Amino acid sequence: MTDTGSDAQALGAIDEYLARTADERLADYIDFLRIPSIGALSGHDADTARAADFLVQRLNAMGIKAESSPTPGHPIVYAEWLGAPGAPTVIVYGHYDVQPVDPLDLWVRPPFEPRVEDGRIYARGAADDKGQVHLHLWAARAWLETAGRLPINVKFVIEGEEESGSENFDAWLEANRDRLSADLVVVSDTGFFEGNRPAITVGLRGLVYMQLDVSGPDVDLHSGTYGGNAQNPANALAAIIAGLKSMDGVITVPGFYDQVRPLSDAEHAEFERMPFDEADFRTEHGLRELVGEPGYLPLERRGARPTLDVNGLWGGFQGEGSKTIIPAHAHAKISCRLVPDMDPQRTFELVRERVMSLAPAGVAVELSLLSAGMWSLVPIDHPTSVAAAEALEEVFGEPPFYLREGGSIPAAASFAGLLRVPVVLLGFTNPDDRAHAPNEVMYLANYEGGARTVARYWQKLADLGL
Amino acid sequence: MTDTGSDAQALGAIDEYLARTADERLADYIDFLRIPSIGALSGHDADTARAADFLVQRLNAMGIKAESSPTPGHPIVYAEWLGAPGAPTVIVYGHYDVQPVDPLDLWVRPPFEPRVEDGRIYARGAADDKGQVHLHLWAARAWLETAGRLPINVKFVIEGEEESGSENFDAWLEANRDRLSADLVVVSDTGFFEGNRPAITVGLRGLVYMQLDVSGPDVDLHSGTYGGNAQNPANALAAIIAGLKSMDGVITVPGFYDQVRPLSDAEHAEFERMPFDEADFRTEHGLRELVGEPGYLPLERRGARPTLDVNGLWGGFQGEGSKTIIPAHAHAKISCRLVPDMDPQRTFELVRERVMSLAPAGVAVELSLLSAGMWSLVPIDHPTSVAAAEALEEVFGEPPFYLREGGSIPAAASFAGLLRVPVVLLGFTNPDDRAHAPNEVMYLANYEGGARTVARYWQKLADLGL
Repeated sequence: MTDTGSDAQALGAIDEYLARTADERLADYIDFLRIPSIGALSGHDADTARAADFLVQRLNAMGIKAESSPTPGHPIVYAEWLGAPGAPTVIVYGHYDVQPVDPLDLWVRPPFEPRVEDGRIYARGAADDKGQVHLHLWAARAWLETAGRLPINVKFVIEGEEESGSENFDAWLEANRDRLSADLVVVSDTGFFEGNRPAITVGLRGLVYMQLDVSGPDVDLHSGTYGGNAQNPANALAAIIAGLKSMDGVITVPGFYDQVRPLSDAEHAEFERMPFDEADFRTEHGLRELVGEPGYLPLERRGARPTLDVNGLWGGFQGEGSKTIIPAHAHAKISCRLVPDMDPQRTFELVRERVMSLAPAGVAVELSLLSAGMWSLVPIDHPTSVAAAEALEEVFGEPPFYLREGGSIPAAASFAGLLRVPVVLLGFTNPDDRAHAPNEVMYLANYEGGARTVARYWQKLADLGL
Repeated sequence: MTDTGSDAQALGAIDEYLARTADERLADYIDFLRIPSIGALSGHDADTARAADFLVQRLNAMGIKAESSPTPGHPIVYAEWLGAPGAPTVIVYGHYDVQPVDPLDLWVRPPFEPRVEDGRIYARGAADDKGQVHLHLWAARAWLETAGRLPINVKFVIEGEEESGSENFDAWLEANRDRLSADLVVVSDTGFFEGNRPAITVGLRGLVYMQLDVSGPDVDLHSGTYGGNAQNPANALAAIIAGLKSMDGVITVPGFYDQVRPLSDAEHAEFERMPFDEADFRTEHGLRELVGEPGYLPLERRGARPTLDVNGLWGGFQGEGSKTIIPAHAHAKISCRLVPDMDPQRTFELVRERVMSLAPAGVAVELSLLSAGMWSLVPIDHPTSVAAAEALEEVFGEPPFYLREGGSIPAAASFAGLLRVPVVLLGFTNPDDRAHAPNEVMYLANYEGGARTVARYWQKLADLGL
């Protein structure tokens, strides 16, 4: 896995090129950041289109065939360089749209007038995700300008609706599946670990999202006339929910944990190795204390154990003061995060069986499946993980942490669902990047190191052959 | 308790007078019903004032000093005849405002164009409550026209905001307490039992209305990032509610039932005697089956046993589709109906203790008292109950049922709280009166019998001396 002589030569030239073009690159990055491509706001539609055009222009200029591929919403920038027949093909995913900027008065400088200070660049989109897209472009440019080629085949898929729900993304993937064949997808929309230490996200949890509906009488009843004789759908809803999870976080659905793959000693050791500042995690959003499954580390409970949470509930009177009714119906949104090897459909069925077994007399109970998504886990020792880890260590001087995140990245799940190939989450943002908040910031060292890491990673994937 | 000779003579004259004036009385009743006094709709403010003026005019015309007493809302008609020094004083309560009439297209005839058909009169307010007010006026008029006096002192309190929450009623009572001294209050806003059989409502349940607030983090959390480590306020709310009552209706708050006075054999026998059509009760509002405390009759569970019901709950995401959050907080309105000898404050404290004992780690739990009202129970053998029963039996030919209702009547609770005297609920409407619905109807036999019953009842109260 060490560099061959010619690899080392090529990478040396790239490093030299990147060092020489740092000012030009920063200026170009700033030009990209000046475009207020707030995709969610229709008043910025022209700006959002301009950001797509910026990418298409830059990619075509360096010799990578690019287009702005229309969707019912914002276009998807699609580009491909396929000049390495026999070498692996990698899809690089990112997005060019940015979050809205409210509250504007908390910004030290206007969000679309980038400011460079102390090795950091402040602007909306600096980290999420324009910086990561831009460093990928320059990794490609460095290869093309120095070696006249890329070491692998690369397909860029850069969308413009990530911050507003990626509504048109799946349909676009489906419509373009013929040209999307690949050996690996690199999603570059994540970041480093606490303390700005390099990291690869190897795991994401899956999701089963359900709705529980409990119906009683045709209409809200007078609680005086009917209280004592009518089963109350809101009380029944509460009893059912209470029967799904204990208050120390253990899910009480029979069979629920049977599908869960136990953590190996090595996996547990990796979790134990990761620094985790519990006080920090708690105070960020005012958590009183951490409560979760006994016997597991907080990071394990986040990344490697399933959950069951009520996401919302409603029914009956919600106003100020008093209204003495027995509600006609009550409802809850309930979701489970899934880990290897849980099957979403099977999990839904187990929860449903439990719900039905808890349904009391006098009400009708229904549990429906609203959406389901698969978990993903790239093994730490998978060649694509090892290659990414080596590239990171070479550039940043320390081996990365392997993160198993608690959430899901819709694009990652979409690619995984469509292509059935590994999805590597290789991102470079500093953890305090204030994505989605005022004064978003990207460390230039992360940005520059990112470009160098990507250039190296591609070479290593070529060496692997996959 | 039988009529004395002179009583019989007086009542004979009254019956004769009422028989002779039936047409005039019906015409006057119809005039009252023609006034569209929908108190809740400001477009009908002039009409509502006109209904108050109608009563003031009629009362003054028969020699009972009446006024339209202002409130911040609709006036209260207050009238008094105090020409029987040494005799008991009775307050008669009713209301002159009526419910809105939507949906108008379901009325066979316009709601304020009264229609008489088959011994019934159809119009908005015919039963609730203009008919009952009107029959009291004519009971007084019959006494005054035949005997030149009433047998007791009578104070009329007829409000105009009953259908819109009696907002200004308590303040008016408080402001007028000096002239409201009485030995008894007769609330005439209830009706006969199923099958149109005479009834006296002797019991009402009390109420403790509470709000449960469960708070977790400062903001809604990402259920992926925090799921597994953050206690979920909505799950916690459900667990607390589930710990308050079993699904067969038994309240699981320690000490809750200790204050409940057991039903005597006589009381149980009275409940058992009452006809109760369970299928009818179920199907009226689509109840699947009756569910309640084992070992008690449905009417006992309604009138003589306490309840605990969620009136509403809310928290987190309630929209269409999915939102993957752990809600920052969750809430419920919870109320208990109270029976003798439960103390509202003590009941609240017991529920609060139970809630706090169920509060899990990681969230803040609060239970607050929103309102409380006392139960009321006039013993069946109380002289005022016996007198009412005798009057009903003499007119309607059968002894009344003694009802213990599940709800509360705010005016009854207000009078009881202010005056600490018995409140007798003596009403005459047929059970199928469609109060609040299209084609409201009052049987003229109930209306006429009501006037005769009231005239008799007053004589009996005079005989009692109280």
